[in-house]
Amino acid sequence: MAIPYPHFIAADKAAMETGLLAPSSSSLSPPTVVLTQDELKKIAAYKAVEYVESGMVLGLGTGSTAKHAVDRIGELLRQGKLSNIVGIPTSKMTHEQAVSLGIPLSDLDSHPVVDLAIDGADEVDPDLNLVKGRGGSLLREKMVEGVCKKFVVIVDESKMVKYIGGSGLAMPVEVVPFCWKFTASRLQKLFEEAGCVAKLRTFGGKDEPFVTDNGNYIVDLYFKKSIGDLKVASDAILQLAGVVEHGMFLDMATTVIVAGKLGVTVKHKQ
Amino acid sequence: MAIPYPHFIAADKAAMETGLLAPSSSSLSPPTVVLTQDELKKIAAYKAVEYVESGMVLGLGTGSTAKHAVDRIGELLRQGKLSNIVGIPTSKMTHEQAVSLGIPLSDLDSHPVVDLAIDGADEVDPDLNLVKGRGGSLLREKMVEGVCKKFVVIVDESKMVKYIGGSGLAMPVEVVPFCWKFTASRLQKLFEEAGCVAKLRTFGGKDEPFVTDNGNYIVDLYFKKSIGDLKVASDAILQLAGVVEHGMFLDMATTVIVAGKLGVTVKHKQ
Repeated sequence: MAIPYPHFIAADKAAMETGLLAPSSSSLSPPTVVLTQDELKKIAAYKAVEYVESGMVLGLGTGSTAKHAVDRIGELLRQGKLSNIVGIPTSKMTHEQAVSLGIPLSDLDSHPVVDLAIDGADEVDPDLNLVKGRGGSLLREKMVEGVCKKFVVIVDESKMVKYIGGSGLAMPVEVVPFCWKFTASRLQKLFEEAGCVAKLRTFGGKDEPFVTDNGNYIVDLYFKKSIGDLKVASDAILQLAGVVEHGMFLDMATTVIVAGKLGVTVKHKQ
Repeated sequence: MAIPYPHFIAADKAAMETGLLAPSSSSLSPPTVVLTQDELKKIAAYKAVEYVESGMVLGLGTGSTAKHAVDRIGELLRQGKLSNIVGIPTSKMTHEQAVSLGIPLSDLDSHPVVDLAIDGADEVDPDLNLVKGRGGSLLREKMVEGVCKKFVVIVDESKMVKYIGGSGLAMPVEVVPFCWKFTASRLQKLFEEAGCVAKLRTFGGKDEPFVTDNGNYIVDLYFKKSIGDLKVASDAILQLAGVVEHGMFLDMATTVIVAGKLGVTVKHKQ
């Protein structure tokens, strides 16, 4: 059940301090402002940062929602409200952002145990399975978020889907550039029954392939209907030589924070 | 059962023409020459090339044994005994070799169906499961050899093992360079019960990592005993984010040609 914003504001003064939300005269009346998608992302991100404690090793996500969480962690460090944090960035972009904020950084080689990761997602299904990687960082994200004790996912309500692929948007697969067309065609064939279409991701609308931080390409899969058992689908994708990783994050999220126009919902893994 | 070399020679004059084998006065007496490992490799390779027919799309393997097969295909093309061949090389090295021999080349994007692939292997178990990739080309080899109608493997008898890993030599895993130590440690832990040791492959005895054609690293796994169910092991390895591919080629070889000191054995998949 969603917590209406006035309650949320009461519980999270930080969100109010940002000026995102107008204080309400009654704690029961709905917020009077219309929140943009980016504001919703920011609210979810700030809520997630409440889980951060001093001394933690933190996985730092990538993308427009995670960016707000990283900003907030940097702010709390500057204010002295958090200390002794070690961040593990999930992309070169987040690395740069964290460096600019003065967040101390390390990597999985030096810190193979991660206390908490916070990241956005492109889709969240009712079992808290995710699609991630529309930002192109799925591999590093999966490496970091696959070993964290708690993984808090932050989304606005547009990301909630009935089934993986249900938004009609891409489920990305990272592939080696060598014979990518061949790999794309095998991927499409794998999910023929779900009406799958496989497309190479290009860069900025040009014909140049988008290249990941690992020097690979991304093939985006679009499904017309559910692909069925996700574990079976995952293994079938990974068994294709030429595939490096896919964007389904199954059974990994421990908490999902959803910011909607009517309030914030926190879902915990059953 | 091994075919003694005199019979093999009778069936394959090409091998005799190379001067590898001294003709015997009696077809029943054993060969009088002592064959080197490289000569055994060459015999297996020449035998495999007997499966090649004009008009085929051919997967061209990589490594010291496959090199002999590619040489032989080039020779038969020059002699006009083969024609209309399209080769799909499994590495940059084989690409260069084939170009130098005038073998017409293509790739999986243009030729997604491969009639026959010929390649060496580092280990062959009794079920014709293989370890490949000590030469570092396991990913491209697996892509090509995973889609061929026939896959003929050529080895000298030292490559036959009771179980995968049984030679005490490496089972290679291609990993992304990002946090490779972390991935290596997860791989080692995965096979803890088999006494697994994971080592980064280095280049020419130096401390520099060996880099694959795809820009990745190789982590070599050494096992003290059998790792059990290979399909389960394969899925577990592929499920680790950071792993690109492993060197176990399960249920892929259709024929294995083994050249031993006492003759050539041809094993077909049951």
